[in-house]
Amino acid sequence: METLDTYKAILGEIGKLRSAKSLLAWDQQTHMPGAGSAARADALGKLSRLGFELATSDELGQCIEELEARDDLSDEEAASVRDVGRQYRRQKAIPPDLFEAFTIAQSKGQAAWAEARAKADFAHFRPNLEKLVDFARQFAEYYGYEDTPYDALLEPFEPGMTSRRLRKIIEPLKAELVPFLERIAAEGTPPDADVLVGSFPVNMQREMSRRTLEIIGYDYGSGALDDAPHPFTTEIAHGDVRITNRYEEDDPVSGLFGALHEGGHALYGQGMGENLYKLSLSDGASFGIHESQSRLIENQIGRSRPFWRFFQPIIGEFLPQLAGVDAEALYRAVNVVSPSLIRVEADEVTYNFHIMLRFELESALINGETAVADLPALWNDAMQRYLGVSPNDDADGVLQDVHWSMGAFGYFPSYMLGNLYAAQVATALRADRPNLDAEIEAGDFEPLVSWLREKVHQFGGVHRAEDLIRRITGEGLNAKHFIDYVVGKFSDIYRL
Amino acid sequence: METLDTYKAILGEIGKLRSAKSLLAWDQQTHMPGAGSAARADALGKLSRLGFELATSDELGQCIEELEARDDLSDEEAASVRDVGRQYRRQKAIPPDLFEAFTIAQSKGQAAWAEARAKADFAHFRPNLEKLVDFARQFAEYYGYEDTPYDALLEPFEPGMTSRRLRKIIEPLKAELVPFLERIAAEGTPPDADVLVGSFPVNMQREMSRRTLEIIGYDYGSGALDDAPHPFTTEIAHGDVRITNRYEEDDPVSGLFGALHEGGHALYGQGMGENLYKLSLSDGASFGIHESQSRLIENQIGRSRPFWRFFQPIIGEFLPQLAGVDAEALYRAVNVVSPSLIRVEADEVTYNFHIMLRFELESALINGETAVADLPALWNDAMQRYLGVSPNDDADGVLQDVHWSMGAFGYFPSYMLGNLYAAQVATALRADRPNLDAEIEAGDFEPLVSWLREKVHQFGGVHRAEDLIRRITGEGLNAKHFIDYVVGKFSDIYRL
Repeated sequence: METLDTYKAILGEIGKLRSAKSLLAWDQQTHMPGAGSAARADALGKLSRLGFELATSDELGQCIEELEARDDLSDEEAASVRDVGRQYRRQKAIPPDLFEAFTIAQSKGQAAWAEARAKADFAHFRPNLEKLVDFARQFAEYYGYEDTPYDALLEPFEPGMTSRRLRKIIEPLKAELVPFLERIAAEGTPPDADVLVGSFPVNMQREMSRRTLEIIGYDYGSGALDDAPHPFTTEIAHGDVRITNRYEEDDPVSGLFGALHEGGHALYGQGMGENLYKLSLSDGASFGIHESQSRLIENQIGRSRPFWRFFQPIIGEFLPQLAGVDAEALYRAVNVVSPSLIRVEADEVTYNFHIMLRFELESALINGETAVADLPALWNDAMQRYLGVSPNDDADGVLQDVHWSMGAFGYFPSYMLGNLYAAQVATALRADRPNLDAEIEAGDFEPLVSWLREKVHQFGGVHRAEDLIRRITGEGLNAKHFIDYVVGKFSDIYRL
Repeated sequence: METLDTYKAILGEIGKLRSAKSLLAWDQQTHMPGAGSAARADALGKLSRLGFELATSDELGQCIEELEARDDLSDEEAASVRDVGRQYRRQKAIPPDLFEAFTIAQSKGQAAWAEARAKADFAHFRPNLEKLVDFARQFAEYYGYEDTPYDALLEPFEPGMTSRRLRKIIEPLKAELVPFLERIAAEGTPPDADVLVGSFPVNMQREMSRRTLEIIGYDYGSGALDDAPHPFTTEIAHGDVRITNRYEEDDPVSGLFGALHEGGHALYGQGMGENLYKLSLSDGASFGIHESQSRLIENQIGRSRPFWRFFQPIIGEFLPQLAGVDAEALYRAVNVVSPSLIRVEADEVTYNFHIMLRFELESALINGETAVADLPALWNDAMQRYLGVSPNDDADGVLQDVHWSMGAFGYFPSYMLGNLYAAQVATALRADRPNLDAEIEAGDFEPLVSWLREKVHQFGGVHRAEDLIRRITGEGLNAKHFIDYVVGKFSDIYRL
């Protein structure tokens, strides 16, 4: 067989196993009964092993080497070889014994973290975290890096991104938004959040989310909406991109924004052609770019005034207690700014501070500048510095996120980059479509989604994040767009 | 590794792939969006191929050979080697090229059957069916048999059963029940079926099924109930035995009996220990024994007078239109006898006639005594002979079942055997538990299910069907129990 055909055939086999694995993982969070969990872990382990064998096979390695030397590949094929080659070398870089020891440390780490969090006892988690940091540092050496070890861990989430660059991006954000948050607190007129207080039946919230996803263009013919403990989107296959969501009885909008957020991810997955799935390019340009698609729909659109002018009658239809609240009051109520302890509950102004703090701490850990034992005190200091709040205990502080317990270092910055990319893309979108607000207010999401398809979705992982942003906006990542967006929006809401 | 450990390890790997495959197949019928079907077929094909490779590996073959020669195995281990060995030899018996050609003929056959059925045009299906019969005849030669080729095809569904034996079983059934059916038609006082006429919301029927399954002891902690186009039960793993069901708005009980039927299958699956799953013995003693567990719960219990005395207030709670219908009227209405064209809608008196007809025809096809071209006429003749009805066209006649289009010959008798085993087991059950009726009327299903667990479920596939029936009832399969049950029950209902 011709090398390119062999390469595609191997990706095809990997894709089938990956699709099966995605379905098993999705079912684990949605429909699987509790007693099925042990057998499910075994089945998932088997599929992972089979996939790993294919993804690290000598045959694939030879294909990659031969294809990298060729100049007759299409853009998609070349991008595929670039990304698959990168992953192949990373997977081959780690000695199998070391990787196996790491997976054991991961599962011990997660168990210890869950216990430590329940007891708010960091000391219980500390030795596990020390081991996981040590693994990550060893991995970084195997992967290789130019500047700092942490850069080697950033790479899979945001290819091409470095700590140095991240620090430069953060600088103006911090300089502008820390004082802006202080100004909001000192001089702002806060929205009336009480309009959203009440008890709202979960089944009506679920139906409202279902309808909202339909409205924004999510296609149920190639997707599904299910309940899960944590919202997520999963690309099971081309033609099968599913969303999960959760609902809180005492909060009428957390489920709605969950649906909009996951809807943004899912539109990305549904907007890619089958070819991108076959070439292993369906994960998108980067984690940050993927997050930009969810944040754009959730915040730039879903938390905008035109959206609430459109959505006011709809929320009243599903949640009749809110039928009498006008659009402006709803818009203001979903945009309350409040420095809080918990990242996942943070508003648009404060969210990035939670990420800056985590980036500072985890990069210092990996680069050997900080000891695990010092984390709780450093965490609490940084919370004061950025947000002026202090956790009562480590459960609401350094133990709140699952990521480190899985040995996932380098993931957090993608959340912040998602916000920044989203604002920069939205600037270009508004320049291209001056009538966007009127369209949203009229409930016409088709022009918005078509624009995103054309500019972002259709390319999947063909262009690297930085290249994609340049193509769309004419410049590299620039935090100015986010700062302007946040300062403009919240100055208006808080009447500054 | 010791041979027995190697053997168990290979079964473990096969089990993981089989579990993943079951989940993908379940999802295909329940939650998968339509656009995901092409990718799903690919993923299922991949898992099948991997499972087939393991199930036909030389390593497994060597283990089987060595273990068959040993006498220190536990009962479970010996039964596992017996069944896995049998399947291994069957799979190895067919030349791979022939089997591949057969799988292509299967998928073409199913497509042609669906088209032929939609157009009520047997001629359109005929060449495909001829090919499938030819494959089956070739397979029978490879598998080997003592008496007729058809026996080789019966074997995987009902190990040890033969055509000769089936004919003997059918003889008294036919002799007693054909005249009994005529007597019902001529002299019986039919129940008033109109009490069940109306429109019954599907969501309430679904909740009623959910509650009913809970009442009979189905454990949602190791199962789930979902909607699907056709009801089925699937054992995804130990601890994960799921039911699907469907509901008809104009029929308040078809969904209920679907749930009871699948509930019977699922109690079997939930009643087997993890060891049986690990040893590949979780399919039960035979297809007929599995069907007996569903039929016992559906008919012997669910269509009994004590059940309806218990269930009358419950159906009224979910379907308020029926609250005023008394238990006796409900009991009679769910036991209407009516010779019909369609097997899956048949009552307890006529169901087996549909199977006798299919057995006659398919065994004659496989044994070369009948040509495919003659099927429609033979079908219609037999319908007259057994049931006194004639289909208007082949869609409601010879084209009604999917089985032959998949090349599945030898499957149908299991449905009849299920009814017969159920009646025979129920005789033993009633002898052991003289208070059964009172327990059911009080809604106490625990003694019933405990008895089934002890006598049937806990053994899974350890005992062959005939051995199991002997252990429970002291004799081999005997159709007399079914005849007595049906004649007694329906003489009372029809006041003969």
